[in-house]
Amino acid sequence: MGQSLFYSIFGISLAGLLCAYLLARYVLRQDDGTPKMKEIAAAIKEGAMAFLKRQYTTIGILTLVLGAIIFAAYYFGANDLNYGWHTAVAFLLGAACSALSGFIGMWVSVKANLRTASAAQKSLNKALQISLRGGAVSGILVVALSLMGVGGLFYLFGGMTNPTEVPLLLVGFGFGASFVALFAQLGGGIYTKAADVGADLVGKVEAGIPEDDPRNPAVIADLVGDNVGDCAGRGADLFESTAAENIGAMILGVALFPVFGLNGIIFPLVARGFGLIASVIGVMFVKIKESQDPMKGLNKGYFVTTGLATLGFLAATYLLLTPSAEYLTANPLAANAWMWFFGCGLVGIVASIAFVYITQYYTEYKYRPVKEIAQASETGSGTNIISGMAVGMESTGMPVLVISAALLGSYFLGNHSGIEQGGLYGTAVATMGMLSTAAYILAMDTFGPITDNAGGIVEMSKSSEEVRKRTDRLDSVGNTTKALTKGYAVGSAALAAFLLFSAYLTDAHLTSIDLAKPVVFVGGLLGAVLVFIFSALAIRAVGHAAYYIINDVRAQFKENPGIMKGTSKPDYARCVDICTKGALKEMILPGVTAIVVPTAIGFLLGAEAVGATLMVGTIAGVILALVLNNSGGAWDNAKKYIETGAHGGKGSFAHKAAVTGDTVGDPFKDTAGPSLHVLIKLLSTLTLVLAPLFLLVQK
Amino acid sequence: MGQSLFYSIFGISLAGLLCAYLLARYVLRQDDGTPKMKEIAAAIKEGAMAFLKRQYTTIGILTLVLGAIIFAAYYFGANDLNYGWHTAVAFLLGAACSALSGFIGMWVSVKANLRTASAAQKSLNKALQISLRGGAVSGILVVALSLMGVGGLFYLFGGMTNPTEVPLLLVGFGFGASFVALFAQLGGGIYTKAADVGADLVGKVEAGIPEDDPRNPAVIADLVGDNVGDCAGRGADLFESTAAENIGAMILGVALFPVFGLNGIIFPLVARGFGLIASVIGVMFVKIKESQDPMKGLNKGYFVTTGLATLGFLAATYLLLTPSAEYLTANPLAANAWMWFFGCGLVGIVASIAFVYITQYYTEYKYRPVKEIAQASETGSGTNIISGMAVGMESTGMPVLVISAALLGSYFLGNHSGIEQGGLYGTAVATMGMLSTAAYILAMDTFGPITDNAGGIVEMSKSSEEVRKRTDRLDSVGNTTKALTKGYAVGSAALAAFLLFSAYLTDAHLTSIDLAKPVVFVGGLLGAVLVFIFSALAIRAVGHAAYYIINDVRAQFKENPGIMKGTSKPDYARCVDICTKGALKEMILPGVTAIVVPTAIGFLLGAEAVGATLMVGTIAGVILALVLNNSGGAWDNAKKYIETGAHGGKGSFAHKAAVTGDTVGDPFKDTAGPSLHVLIKLLSTLTLVLAPLFLLVQK
Repeated sequence: MGQSLFYSIFGISLAGLLCAYLLARYVLRQDDGTPKMKEIAAAIKEGAMAFLKRQYTTIGILTLVLGAIIFAAYYFGANDLNYGWHTAVAFLLGAACSALSGFIGMWVSVKANLRTASAAQKSLNKALQISLRGGAVSGILVVALSLMGVGGLFYLFGGMTNPTEVPLLLVGFGFGASFVALFAQLGGGIYTKAADVGADLVGKVEAGIPEDDPRNPAVIADLVGDNVGDCAGRGADLFESTAAENIGAMILGVALFPVFGLNGIIFPLVARGFGLIASVIGVMFVKIKESQDPMKGLNKGYFVTTGLATLGFLAATYLLLTPSAEYLTANPLAANAWMWFFGCGLVGIVASIAFVYITQYYTEYKYRPVKEIAQASETGSGTNIISGMAVGMESTGMPVLVISAALLGSYFLGNHSGIEQGGLYGTAVATMGMLSTAAYILAMDTFGPITDNAGGIVEMSKSSEEVRKRTDRLDSVGNTTKALTKGYAVGSAALAAFLLFSAYLTDAHLTSIDLAKPVVFVGGLLGAVLVFIFSALAIRAVGHAAYYIINDVRAQFKENPGIMKGTSKPDYARCVDICTKGALKEMILPGVTAIVVPTAIGFLLGAEAVGATLMVGTIAGVILALVLNNSGGAWDNAKKYIETGAHGGKGSFAHKAAVTGDTVGDPFKDTAGPSLHVLIKLLSTLTLVLAPLFLLVQK
Repeated sequence: MGQSLFYSIFGISLAGLLCAYLLARYVLRQDDGTPKMKEIAAAIKEGAMAFLKRQYTTIGILTLVLGAIIFAAYYFGANDLNYGWHTAVAFLLGAACSALSGFIGMWVSVKANLRTASAAQKSLNKALQISLRGGAVSGILVVALSLMGVGGLFYLFGGMTNPTEVPLLLVGFGFGASFVALFAQLGGGIYTKAADVGADLVGKVEAGIPEDDPRNPAVIADLVGDNVGDCAGRGADLFESTAAENIGAMILGVALFPVFGLNGIIFPLVARGFGLIASVIGVMFVKIKESQDPMKGLNKGYFVTTGLATLGFLAATYLLLTPSAEYLTANPLAANAWMWFFGCGLVGIVASIAFVYITQYYTEYKYRPVKEIAQASETGSGTNIISGMAVGMESTGMPVLVISAALLGSYFLGNHSGIEQGGLYGTAVATMGMLSTAAYILAMDTFGPITDNAGGIVEMSKSSEEVRKRTDRLDSVGNTTKALTKGYAVGSAALAAFLLFSAYLTDAHLTSIDLAKPVVFVGGLLGAVLVFIFSALAIRAVGHAAYYIINDVRAQFKENPGIMKGTSKPDYARCVDICTKGALKEMILPGVTAIVVPTAIGFLLGAEAVGATLMVGTIAGVILALVLNNSGGAWDNAKKYIETGAHGGKGSFAHKAAVTGDTVGDPFKDTAGPSLHVLIKLLSTLTLVLAPLFLLVQK
């Protein structure tokens, strides 16, 4: 059973790739709008591709260097660990797959934006379908590629004959993916917010022209930013998540090899494969009437996906998580183990739904927190900021309770399955449950920047009021889905992190991480501080990169007075170029810090201390990411709420204060927050890869 | 030797109390200014005392209730731990001493402010001496009272005959002190910032009258706030620190009883006593010329104190930390143990100096960080806030490195002393070294609100330009010393926390806190989130309390139009009263949260999990406190820097942006940040007291 299901993973992945291809073809065949629209979309596409090309060149060089170091370290330093080439090859392959999923996702996205804009001329439903299916290309691709990559390497490294040792050889794949994701998310996140803040400050504040006004030289850079930050960055991020979590769960499966055999090791891949099928079907279910709220359509698809994924999970646990006959003879109580593990999966699925609702509560203006910020805006920027920070900090409570309950609940269920050490595997199964809808969630996420771009194209091409209204409605739903994905991403990162810790303990031959030892405590302290320093660097990088843009826009206005009069076109490409260079320069320092600090701690303080770095860093990272994401989202929507007419509406004193909050929230929620998700997982994969070397140094 | 030195502690404490009395008498004998000044000072004093009376009534009731619960829990729940009354009595005594030191400190402070204002009419030196000596009353009293309390209880509980068991009976004293400090700091911190923000928003922003203008009905409440927040709150906070750290170090000394006998247990008290003497002498050395920078005078005193404290420390280690003859026969290598421990003390002293300089770097406008914020203010409030948040996050790096180096360094030195388990005791000795100058630091801290108040009195009594200049100079130095103390308080809290962890392990019969266990990991996660929730509640409380004031001031302006014309006096007392009620109401939720959450975790998840709550909560608390204190301080000084004429000076666009930052920073640095210091230590003392009960439940 296990073997044939294992091979089915490749079938599912290939089917997934085919679906992605068909969806992309569907999107490409749609009408691509008026000449004016095409012109704008071409500029966005050109800018985005130019950025990606340069970014990938930089990342490529860094990856090759690090790959060579890993190979050398394993080869020369750890001759007894004769798998130097495995880790290096896996690293490079992981990096390549991550880059590829970022690239294709964005390639479709910059085509879908134009077609969404064009479809919005006729029908809301059509526009919704094009943008969601464009997003789904990314979502499906990411999951399918990670399944193929991890499954393929497992097979190539001889996992079918040596299943207990091969999973540890795969960690390089996860690290490669994390490494690329870190720079992709950082570079993209810095680009998008530098362009946004720069365009706003110099356009809205200094020149007094509205948002997305074609006279603003930075306007194309701003639209490019949505793609490179939200599409390419998030794509790489979620690729890395799925890969790292699959590998981590496989490593935990090794501990249960006497119980489940190969089945327990490949279970994560099979469960993920079933989830992929569920997501594809869910996407096809999304359909609305012209008068309906687009969120309703997306929710329908989400619930179809969740329902099907639950069924798939039931099948996977039933088929794979029944103990071997020998084990059952010795432990007859374990006969219904699969039911308990299905319970763990349910815990994960429920947790993912809880995350979606909690994020909505803290970031939508229907509820108390955002209203409180809007109210505080009446007394000025200062109270707006104070109130938003308080909301951000408060918003950490519920998600952490959900994470805690999910961890303890699945551990408890796993322990009661009748299988020894079943608790830890239970937490892994819960993580798999949570991630079973990942492809759909990612589709909703990428839907955000596509509709955002479509809105920009419609605005710049001066389409009719009716068309704008359609894209505005989609755009506002896109903001919500973007916020939800972040909540989901943090939650899954936290659950997955615990699974990766356990893998790290196995890898580093540790049985405990004892915080009461001074050196371990210091490791934890440094892990927490790393998270704050990294965030400070990421936020500051946005400020620096924004200055490059501001200076260029000022220069363009000065050099060519025809721009402001509307008689001559600004040089959009120059702005895009400057923003690209700025973002790539600024991503280096935070990125390198994230790599060097944990490595140094591992070599100086040892494997147990860096374990604490990993764990306490993860705790701090999850919480800080929640603060940054949710305060940012809440500020954004407090502004939007006031713009609906509350507290004096647009242009009022309260609105001005709310704009300040929105500006502050931008680098929080779109640069530092999402980069922290990557950092959390990078800490895990980095330490997993380096653990054998830390041990060598200790000897 | 040990016994006679132990008794000398009482002598030193009594001498300290005498010094405090003499200093208070010195202050009281000074000229108390013009009738106008007296009138204002009387209003401040009346408001401050009224607040303290009501606050202490509330705290008193809470303390009695909790004392009864502790007694009952120990008496009925833990009959085998027949020390129910010890813990309850120690708790009540600790609470009483903490309240007393807060009260007396403030009592002197509200007298010293007037006399400082009066002296400023003649001489800068005289004003400096009065304000510092007024502050020193607080500083000396706190240390002397904590020495007497801890030493006295040790004696009364039979420590001379049963030295290995009694230290654990003292933990109630620390918890009582923490408990009062929590509410004192929270209530005072909320009061001071609610009054400040409220007075500014309704006075400066709405009515357009300058700061400290007598027409503002909230102006006295604002001045009262400086006393109740900064004097009474910080006094209780530092009392609790010194008490908890003494007790924690004594508990660690028990582990070395076979080596040092009684000497190792009473060493912390003796070292602290010598530090007290050094501080008293240091205070007397402060003297400046009219043209000199007052900071120079304070620095001279600080270095005299540090030098003498180092000598005292040398004496204490030499006299007390030489192993017994039996131990030396078996371990001849330990003969020079005292030298190694003196090294640990030096590590602590150097760390405390490092903290002072790092805080200066991040919060003074001579250096890069504050300049960066001022620069960012040119593009508006949004960039000012972003930049300040980045500085706050960045500022966590260096202090954490110093803490790490101090912990590992003293552990290393202690381990090399030739004494088994010497490492842990080494970290305790380093903490004692760091805290040896505590009385002087606290004197400098209380100096801040005294000069701040003196400035307000001078302003409101319409004194001459020259007098204002003197108090302005003192006030600006006071801002610096307040920031420094916070840096010092966070650093010492972090070092002390590690010492209290170790005491907790002893108390709870644990040998490790293994983060790799799910339940322990969840404990850690909840500890970190508690810190953020607590901060959110504290920050929000300021907002709520500020609204009460804003509404009252608006009502007063409406009811009595003569106020704005200057023809009739506003009702200051009503504002003070409303602020008092508001602050006391708002302190309850965060305070109760801080007590209930760790207690619940302990009972639900067990002693090891709550150990992780304590440790990870401390890490998160130290880092978040640094972020809040330093960003707040940096924003404050960025505004001041711009007011010196940079970036357009007062009234410019940049200045307006900087004012926003200052407003945001207020509840960060004066409410949430300082309350976090208390929370960190409360976590330690709370878990220390409850550990036996957690163990009972687990059984």
